[in-house]
Amino acid sequence: MKSDLDRLMKKYNMAAILVTGPAQHNPAMYYLTGGGHLTNADLIKTRGDDPVLYYNPMERDEAAATGLQTKNLAEYNFNDLIKQADGNTIKALALRYQKMLAEQEITSGRMAIYGKMEVGAGYAVFTALQELMPDLEIVGETSRNSMLLEAMATKDESEVEHIRRMGKITTTVVGNVADFLTSHQAKDGVLVDRNGGALKIGDVKRRINLWLAMEGAENPEGTIFAIGRDAGVPHSSGNPDDLLRLGQTIIFDIFPCESGGGYFYDFTRTWCLGYAPDDAQALYDDVYDVYQKIMAELKVGTSFNDYQKRTCEFFEAQGHPTIKDDPAHEEGYVHSLGHGLGLHVHERPWSGSTATQDDILTPGVIVTIEPGLYYPEKGMGCRLEDTVWVTPDGEMEILADFPLDLILPISER
Amino acid sequence: MKSDLDRLMKKYNMAAILVTGPAQHNPAMYYLTGGGHLTNADLIKTRGDDPVLYYNPMERDEAAATGLQTKNLAEYNFNDLIKQADGNTIKALALRYQKMLAEQEITSGRMAIYGKMEVGAGYAVFTALQELMPDLEIVGETSRNSMLLEAMATKDESEVEHIRRMGKITTTVVGNVADFLTSHQAKDGVLVDRNGGALKIGDVKRRINLWLAMEGAENPEGTIFAIGRDAGVPHSSGNPDDLLRLGQTIIFDIFPCESGGGYFYDFTRTWCLGYAPDDAQALYDDVYDVYQKIMAELKVGTSFNDYQKRTCEFFEAQGHPTIKDDPAHEEGYVHSLGHGLGLHVHERPWSGSTATQDDILTPGVIVTIEPGLYYPEKGMGCRLEDTVWVTPDGEMEILADFPLDLILPISER
Repeated sequence: MKSDLDRLMKKYNMAAILVTGPAQHNPAMYYLTGGGHLTNADLIKTRGDDPVLYYNPMERDEAAATGLQTKNLAEYNFNDLIKQADGNTIKALALRYQKMLAEQEITSGRMAIYGKMEVGAGYAVFTALQELMPDLEIVGETSRNSMLLEAMATKDESEVEHIRRMGKITTTVVGNVADFLTSHQAKDGVLVDRNGGALKIGDVKRRINLWLAMEGAENPEGTIFAIGRDAGVPHSSGNPDDLLRLGQTIIFDIFPCESGGGYFYDFTRTWCLGYAPDDAQALYDDVYDVYQKIMAELKVGTSFNDYQKRTCEFFEAQGHPTIKDDPAHEEGYVHSLGHGLGLHVHERPWSGSTATQDDILTPGVIVTIEPGLYYPEKGMGCRLEDTVWVTPDGEMEILADFPLDLILPISER
Repeated sequence: MKSDLDRLMKKYNMAAILVTGPAQHNPAMYYLTGGGHLTNADLIKTRGDDPVLYYNPMERDEAAATGLQTKNLAEYNFNDLIKQADGNTIKALALRYQKMLAEQEITSGRMAIYGKMEVGAGYAVFTALQELMPDLEIVGETSRNSMLLEAMATKDESEVEHIRRMGKITTTVVGNVADFLTSHQAKDGVLVDRNGGALKIGDVKRRINLWLAMEGAENPEGTIFAIGRDAGVPHSSGNPDDLLRLGQTIIFDIFPCESGGGYFYDFTRTWCLGYAPDDAQALYDDVYDVYQKIMAELKVGTSFNDYQKRTCEFFEAQGHPTIKDDPAHEEGYVHSLGHGLGLHVHERPWSGSTATQDDILTPGVIVTIEPGLYYPEKGMGCRLEDTVWVTPDGEMEILADFPLDLILPISER
């Protein structure tokens, strides 16, 4: 958690971290500022000290609202810097960072950089800064081994409450969707409205967006609501023009966040409208069985990736192919068991090929558990996903309850 | 526009462009793929050739839906690359890019990189790629002089229709907000609901989110609805707990985009509830006058930044301070006249200090025109903003009409 940052900076020998970009939909900046309408800011934290937020003067009130120590970027006369850089904007930006760092007594040592931005601009400016400051080592990490993601992996009480609240919102919306679908009748094997018009996936998705907005949430990365063959491809988001056909598996994977780019939730159910054909029921039973076994085995202090191996073993014992044999598999169990969740929908700890030895089910960690089976050529797929908090006592707690049932009953028109 | 890309690549001597990241809320990737649920992809376009999209196998259907030439990233065995890189993920990613580029016969020349991503990961991977490929020059540009933004600055017919549709949605929602406010009555100088409870800015913002969702839009960067002193600070987004007090200026600046991270619109009105005190009316009259003058002067083929100079002259003639004298001013006219708009809410052409000589009102360009005056210490501000398309015939067309009126009439309870 955030209070671990100085310890981690010591562990990884970081003199400073520099975070850039907006405070919304930019997890690193959100984490250290608490969000708000800052469209383009910088933040520097040196080891053992509180962060300093550098703001655009038009956003001085939003900067002040963070409660952080702040500094107005207009104090660095950019026109002078541009002259000093012979008109080169990139070099002028690097010169400004050099000044900001010098004021915080950073001229050497290791500095990690974070924040979402245009990669070309970031590459150019930090390459220029590295040239200006050869004694400083600018460190870029991937999401696999990011120090900041290591801090973010364990959540404090307030973060857990944010995620729990998003879980409540998510399952409320999922309940609305179930009620909406079962309020329809079937005609010729597809759901129809009161006037006999066929319902489409696009109609369902529009309502999901509306219900999320009503609850104060947004879904910047969309929603997966995929039927039939599309349900057999894990990340297929579903075709808006598809009809809601009875007896086909629907994968409904919803991963909204708080409005303004805050904490996420991640949740999946698989439904069959009206009835489940034998092969769909068998597929579901296998996933349900593995879901229950894994949930029962989860234990604090263990490697998260151990459960990926267990999941592969369970699915293989049922006779399904898995990526354990061949990472290029497109049938059977083809993804990792889950991932950490917080200000990113996917963050540390990792399971699967991305996992490191530091990806442990430590108290405070929040992870998704989402076994699934995919058979696109048979026109079906199934995934069950819940989000689990490893409590300070080492218990596993699902942060939002919702029935796991496969079949949504539908009456005939 | 997109059809200019090969010409611009020649002009700037680019052998290739490489775009990375998701297809949603990532303008460069959206522009070249048309959006969709691609969470992490790469795209390479060599000069004179169609782009190739590299996708994660779980997203093969979404990749195919783009209609582009595609290639499965799983074909590059990442485990082998990791071994080759002695376990270093960053080097393995660079090796994969080197292979992808080699297949497209790119081993030297200039290559621009685009796409939103974590700056640390981008810096590290492209620094490693630069080391692996010393004959290739990896080019990073800022938003000021980005070649891709130069292409994006002029819109084709389909893009104009997307933005026009967002203009219609935006003004519909603004109309809903006006109707919602005027349906309330005033008591003790503040708006109250039927039960006499005071309305707050947070209540208004929740409805804005809802109405946008109903229309198939989202506002990833929030909405500015700021009253009184907050209206006097251009980027202050407004305090959710503020009451809606009569006779104070409200700046309502709304900049939503299509769901899934598509095209934006940008629109501002300034309102006074019930009545306008003399100083607020005078402030509004000055802004209205400059708005009309600038709109009348806009001419195809001219430098956009010329109108920033004209705006400063007009406001100075009225007796207001402007940033022309001093960029650190926080009273009077303190920002630039406008900006291009498309898949970014702010893009080329630029006006103000960011402008270059290439920022011209060419046919196809879409810009905002948004003069404003700010007096935080007097507790007021005013801005009027519309989005203007320079048509192929060189006419100026506001893409969504809405009254400019200051006063929203309110009845007393």
